[in-house]
Amino acid sequence: MPLLVMKFGGTSVADLTRIKNAAQKVKREVERGYDVIVIVSAMSGKTNELVGWVEETSPLFDAREYDAIVSSGENVTAGLMALTLQEMDVPARSWQGWQVPINTTDTHSSARFTSIERANIDTKFSEGFKVAVVAGFQGLSPEGRITTLGRGGSDTTAVAFSAAFQAERCDIYTDVDGIYTTDPRISKKARKLDRIAFEEMLELASLGAKVLQTRSVELAMRFKVRLRVLSSFEDTDENSGTLVCDEEEIMESKVVSGVAYSRDEAKLTLVTVEDRPGIAAAIFGPLAQAGINVDMIVQNISELQGADKTRAVTDMTFSCPTSQVARARKALEEAAAQGHIKYDTLVEDNDVAKVSVVGIGMRSHTGVAAKMFSALSAENVNIKVISTSEIKISVLIDRKYMELAVQALHDAFELDKVS
Amino acid sequence: MPLLVMKFGGTSVADLTRIKNAAQKVKREVERGYDVIVIVSAMSGKTNELVGWVEETSPLFDAREYDAIVSSGENVTAGLMALTLQEMDVPARSWQGWQVPINTTDTHSSARFTSIERANIDTKFSEGFKVAVVAGFQGLSPEGRITTLGRGGSDTTAVAFSAAFQAERCDIYTDVDGIYTTDPRISKKARKLDRIAFEEMLELASLGAKVLQTRSVELAMRFKVRLRVLSSFEDTDENSGTLVCDEEEIMESKVVSGVAYSRDEAKLTLVTVEDRPGIAAAIFGPLAQAGINVDMIVQNISELQGADKTRAVTDMTFSCPTSQVARARKALEEAAAQGHIKYDTLVEDNDVAKVSVVGIGMRSHTGVAAKMFSALSAENVNIKVISTSEIKISVLIDRKYMELAVQALHDAFELDKVS
Repeated sequence: MPLLVMKFGGTSVADLTRIKNAAQKVKREVERGYDVIVIVSAMSGKTNELVGWVEETSPLFDAREYDAIVSSGENVTAGLMALTLQEMDVPARSWQGWQVPINTTDTHSSARFTSIERANIDTKFSEGFKVAVVAGFQGLSPEGRITTLGRGGSDTTAVAFSAAFQAERCDIYTDVDGIYTTDPRISKKARKLDRIAFEEMLELASLGAKVLQTRSVELAMRFKVRLRVLSSFEDTDENSGTLVCDEEEIMESKVVSGVAYSRDEAKLTLVTVEDRPGIAAAIFGPLAQAGINVDMIVQNISELQGADKTRAVTDMTFSCPTSQVARARKALEEAAAQGHIKYDTLVEDNDVAKVSVVGIGMRSHTGVAAKMFSALSAENVNIKVISTSEIKISVLIDRKYMELAVQALHDAFELDKVS
Repeated sequence: MPLLVMKFGGTSVADLTRIKNAAQKVKREVERGYDVIVIVSAMSGKTNELVGWVEETSPLFDAREYDAIVSSGENVTAGLMALTLQEMDVPARSWQGWQVPINTTDTHSSARFTSIERANIDTKFSEGFKVAVVAGFQGLSPEGRITTLGRGGSDTTAVAFSAAFQAERCDIYTDVDGIYTTDPRISKKARKLDRIAFEEMLELASLGAKVLQTRSVELAMRFKVRLRVLSSFEDTDENSGTLVCDEEEIMESKVVSGVAYSRDEAKLTLVTVEDRPGIAAAIFGPLAQAGINVDMIVQNISELQGADKTRAVTDMTFSCPTSQVARARKALEEAAAQGHIKYDTLVEDNDVAKVSVVGIGMRSHTGVAAKMFSALSAENVNIKVISTSEIKISVLIDRKYMELAVQALHDAFELDKVS
């Protein structure tokens, strides 16, 4: 029997009416001849309520208790979804993580899958059950305690089940109808993509297109799970939404697939640091230990200073989320106080944003960077930092130009047109 | 190490402040040298919310899914209680039913304990944990699914753990400060009892004194678990509340310990039923199958009817909750339609109440019934049905006299005075 995995996020199961709506989508796939594994999130707002209670009770909470508490929201939705399906004459039952079992590491609150045991669910399918409703976001530690995967973990649960059960496809139902060339709130010309490659989705996800959890895309890429993102609030069919898939499945491929942005970036520059082997490690080691998500890094060319011009110095610039600036400053000051690094000043610019163009076509095309820079130049947008990867070019610019830059790049690469 | 079981009901853990208050009571017992097993209910209102969702989703719900859903409230409280204790430097962890495991039958929604395995919790105690916080009301079926014990089941969980772990005592913290000679809302003279025998508590509980779940008292009696009922909203010490215990522990014992009542009773009389062997079974069989809680039963003396006076007939009267009258009538009419019973009319009286006096001292004292009837007579309260057991005398009276009757009996047996 062919098998589908269908995942419904918090807004898609926010109340009994929406659960019914989601169940109808499941029933339709059963009628088409599929066995279905449904992965559900907690009703929207429920997990936040539980997390709030935990944090109020115990600011430095025991992550094992946190997991036991916050996983309960998914259990409720799984049961309600199973009941709703039964009411529609679809044979279904709910599964909590420990019942499957979904084995994970014991790194509570950010556990990773070690194995998903198929036997119990397979048995139920063979007994005539058509749907297994699985509580997302949770698993079982080697010690027998409940674990969770970190926020948004239900996407990852869905992909992991798709891999374990060799699903034909993993449909992620959410509150948007697919992946767009850029954020439709910023550019009216944004166009929904029919297909996008895993690598592109990864770059877009990590750049702030918050439709899919990054880890779920990584896992899908690794196990070649075809992911489809589509709306739970619209009538959908087999062509709806956006398919995230291997690039070989994408016939037509533009040089650039999308323009992404990240609004709340900060740029920090250590002025006049000693230029010697190991200096980068001395700077970014403490930042990593402090949990700073350092993104772009630029090192200036070296300069010789001192009376005899023997002291080589440079400037080191990096970006991180604005929310982490204070923590980054503290980590650097401590490293300086302990004598590990030396610098004249730390310059902070909290008013920058990152804009990126992403596309697997870049690999085989030249001139993408030049086109990007000239489009920005034509709008008088000054570029502060540039960083490139094989399929992405990112720039830091003043935050006030962010929308303008996204629109200009969307136009320049003609993303509103189907190639 | 001596061990205590402490149970906190829904109002005692209704919010984080109350959970903290409850945790302080636990900490105090740990400081006194006890290992403690804490049994928690869901925050008040939570279970009702979940039950409401289930019933709205599926009126004839699958009880296995019902159990998976409604058990989640206790899991949340268990985790929050463990975190709160940890914040107070008390080594504690939460346990869900399947983690202990608490084995039950597979009669979902009204499961019964088969065994509570001690090994896992004992190991944790031996590793230095002082408190095991266990989610009440739930267990694990032989098939590996979550079961629940029926509403109020956390009391029963507490007693079962007390028996399994040979607890010194089982303290039930609730929103009243003990068991009273009668309902203080009805008689200002109601007095809190220091001790009450299991048998008396059972009669009081089943008669509508809703402090303890009946099953929990039965279980406590069977395993000789000393139960203490006390308030979670007051400062309490080792003498607070009411101890429910074996009658041998009660030195002074009055003839009557309390006056109980049940407001919403109905009296039904089948007029002119054939008086033959098997007629009671023919009447009460169908009522039992329809789930009617028949309480008092009175059969009138037989009378010979017909032209030749050979047909023996009688009247059969019984009481049940008013909410079940319609169902009872339907069951009787169906039995008549199928020819199993024959009667002239069914007379319903929906405006009666039951008042009872309870006391183990009755066993060795005569004249209790006479004293009861004369006290009621002095107030001109007419008695409609009488029923007696070894330690209880119950009467059905017009509902409008209920408060008056309770007060008169409380006075007649001098329950306001310590014997």
